[in-house]
Amino acid sequence: MIKSPSVRKITLITTGGTIEKTYDEQTGELANRRSIVRRMLSELRLEDTEVTVRELMSKDSLEMTDGDRERIVAAVEEAAAEGAGACRGVVVLHGTDTLAETGERLLARIPHPRVPIVLTGAMRPFEMKSSDALQNLTEAIFAAGMLPPGVYCAAHGRVLAFPGVRKDVERGTFVKV
Amino acid sequence: MIKSPSVRKITLITTGGTIEKTYDEQTGELANRRSIVRRMLSELRLEDTEVTVRELMSKDSLEMTDGDRERIVAAVEEAAAEGAGACRGVVVLHGTDTLAETGERLLARIPHPRVPIVLTGAMRPFEMKSSDALQNLTEAIFAAGMLPPGVYCAAHGRVLAFPGVRKDVERGTFVKV
Amino acid sequence: MIKSPSVRKITLITTGGTIEKTYDEQTGELANRRSIVRRMLSELRLEDTEVTVRELMSKDSLEMTDGDRERIVAAVEEAAAEGAGACRGVVVLHGTDTLAETGERLLARIPHPRVPIVLTGAMRPFEMKSSDALQNLTEAIFAAGMLPPGVYCAAHGRVLAFPGVRKDVERGTFVKV
Amino acid sequence: MIKSPSVRKITLITTGGTIEKTYDEQTGELANRRSIVRRMLSELRLEDTEVTVRELMSKDSLEMTDGDRERIVAAVEEAAAEGAGACRGVVVLHGTDTLAETGERLLARIPHPRVPIVLTGAMRPFEMKSSDALQNLTEAIFAAGMLPPGVYCAAHGRVLAFPGVRKDVERGTFVKV
Repeated sequence: MIKSPSVRKITLITTGGTIEKTYDEQTGELANRRSIVRRMLSELRLEDTEVTVRELMSKDSLEMTDGDRERIVAAVEEAAAEGAGACRGVVVLHGTDTLAETGERLLARIPHPRVPIVLTGAMRPFEMKSSDALQNLTEAIFAAGMLPPGVYCAAHGRVLAFPGVRKDVERGTFVKV
Repeated sequence: MIKSPSVRKITLITTGGTIEKTYDEQTGELANRRSIVRRMLSELRLEDTEVTVRELMSKDSLEMTDGDRERIVAAVEEAAAEGAGACRGVVVLHGTDTLAETGERLLARIPHPRVPIVLTGAMRPFEMKSSDALQNLTEAIFAAGMLPPGVYCAAHGRVLAFPGVRKDVERGTFVKV
Repeated sequence: MIKSPSVRKITLITTGGTIEKTYDEQTGELANRRSIVRRMLSELRLEDTEVTVRELMSKDSLEMTDGDRERIVAAVEEAAAEGAGACRGVVVLHGTDTLAETGERLLARIPHPRVPIVLTGAMRPFEMKSSDALQNLTEAIFAAGMLPPGVYCAAHGRVLAFPGVRKDVERGTFVKV
Repeated sequence: MIKSPSVRKITLITTGGTIEKTYDEQTGELANRRSIVRRMLSELRLEDTEVTVRELMSKDSLEMTDGDRERIVAAVEEAAAEGAGACRGVVVLHGTDTLAETGERLLARIPHPRVPIVLTGAMRPFEMKSSDALQNLTEAIFAAGMLPPGVYCAAHGRVLAFPGVRKDVERGTFVKV
């Protein structure tokens, strides 16, 4: 007999970043205009997983203010709160340039989270052909469903735990310092 | 200062299955002819991860014999052996129809593996546009790099531990019984 | 001042063939089940062009009967008839194996068509990643909008006029004999 | 008996434009850095067609100078010259913003070309997922192989003859005035 599956609930908070940049044919520019995470999710096959999307902001992370980061902390706290729909984990889509800064802030403000908080982004927009966007989103959702509580960055085949995650601009990835 | 990264070594054993089926324009047939896992890997961005591919066989898993399954056990044992290049984890690409049977066999024959052994496959060939192949391979490599020792199936957003994994033909995925 | 564009009307008759084969995850088989030409058209950008789709049948062309070919002739005659919405050209999607036979039949039965009748197909299904489906459909629609009346095969960068078109099975394309 | 095919020779001159813009992960910018037309060609299946690529310049067409346009005229004249390898047609990849200006210049300077000269470009870079690049390149090569001598723009399902072609910025395509 096949057991009825237990559905894992993931909250996915979008903030913008390269991963969500879209191309404007009139101006020829890539920019953050709106979340495109639902298009990304439609290309994944997620079983027994319920993803709730919360579109928080749509910003290049180089332009994030201190207030923006506080809004992210508040949104993550709310999603991870005891009783918040029995959320199993939180994923945050974020620009790579200041992802580490937001991760350190989250850890400082939520030192004992109830669930894993997993940040991810991409070096190349999802709308481009050879993008790391879908791989990184896959890894972040996968990690949010299985890791112990904590603050993490998942990308490029690995998960790194905060504190001490940094962007390595030259290699185009994240590393532990 | 950025620490020099520690590279994780993953052994990837290919056995065929839908995930590796290729199309023959002369006959119009999809079949297992050779491994195409290197093409799949070229579409992933894996940092600090060294994947060693071992092409073991190229079979539809419905046609696997008892001897084939023994060859898979032997290859996994060899890859997971103490000292085998300090392998961090083993991934096995496998047809979905008898993946569970091979997983149970691996657990019976290697009840206390030194590293995680992660089986995966796909419902739709990698060569097709809307395939779950790359997502499942991403998840299997990710899982092999972080899970504790054991025998697992990773696919469709989740990891399931043997024993008790089955293919749910109607839903087109794996479940725990 | 920009002139108001004159819209060209193309009738697109689908009959099946490799180009429209879809994959069944339950059986693992590629087969003609329904027309997927609307999905193909959604990936093209056609300006001042109005494509009317007529789904006639969904068959591997090796299984086409004499009656099937007569139905194709009738559908093409109807679309190309004087007054039929001022159709500029007709495209027929067809399996490559007997495309030439249908082309010769069309020429024999409609020796003096009012508009160009352009047959095309593909060596690899549209649902596969490296398919010639979209290229050939692009060429057929383009040809139907500009060629003089006649019966043609458009594929792989060229247009060939009937009579005397054959499939070259070894090269996987069409040639003139 | 299958006749030995007669190969059509096409000269493809690249000048840059949106169609060839590439993404720089360090700066996050799309720009013309080098020609990527060989990657585009590798995704097409062209039978009995020999494409000779001439990488002339790599520029956003808004930055083209009068001298650049003269270099394009010279390159086209050379390719289209009597005896130049029996060239059947010339394709010019060009930014859409000033494609019409270059087309008018070509017609003024080469009023009686020996072969068709077909300009094309794209509204969205080839490197992006939903690009019109490959469709437009397909149409331009196809047109260069079959049109009578003249200067044309091929894109979005149609061919327009110079003089009188303009970019319609609002619609994102070319039109006749």
